[in-house]
Amino acid sequence: MTAATRTRELAHPERTEIRLEGVLHALSDPLRLRIVRELAGADHELACSHFALPVTKSTTTHHFRVLRESGVIRQAYRGTAKMSGLRGEDLDALFPGLLDSVLRAADAQAKRLGEP
Amino acid sequence: MTAATRTRELAHPERTEIRLEGVLHALSDPLRLRIVRELAGADHELACSHFALPVTKSTTTHHFRVLRESGVIRQAYRGTAKMSGLRGEDLDALFPGLLDSVLRAADAQAKRLGEP
Repeated sequence: MTAATRTRELAHPERTEIRLEGVLHALSDPLRLRIVRELAGADHELACSHFALPVTKSTTTHHFRVLRESGVIRQAYRGTAKMSGLRGEDLDALFPGLLDSVLRAADAQAKRLGEP
Repeated sequence: MTAATRTRELAHPERTEIRLEGVLHALSDPLRLRIVRELAGADHELACSHFALPVTKSTTTHHFRVLRESGVIRQAYRGTAKMSGLRGEDLDALFPGLLDSVLRAADAQAKRLGEP
């Protein structure tokens, strides 16, 4: 591996380093929750450019970083695209049922408030 | 009701005003999560003075206010004591299973990390 490829590796917590408080904090923002719902619905990796969020590119990058550093998503470069996927297996192993209950709650709230 | 008693009423969101993002944010702090776990374990109202948290009184008050204003707990004065209880019924009606899964996750993490 060259220095150039190493610098393009993104930092992730190991499964054992993931903390419930950090996961809940990551999920407590409307835009981050929206990203997680889209990733859960897609069931495969999505490019950051897939998400048309109503914020600047740097704010979008910030939200993805919070999700990655808390252990909610995994990100990797594939060529020029930065791809993101949920760490559902890690989260389910640590906190069984938690992610599903948050996703169900988010769906229920969106329906209740008439949001997408 | 006199003005004096009115000012001692504490503001709470109605059930329909409770938002998932606010609940997750309230639960994303270690001390607030600890308060919620104690309230869930007690299964009845507890006085704020019951909680021996390693922070100042004003920080403790802040944490209880975040929990109350997000709809996670209900607080009321009983004589000179400020009593707190979980709004489990409201949360379960809005987000079925969410609070339980967070409490289970918190228990699992505490056991894994050797914390109380």
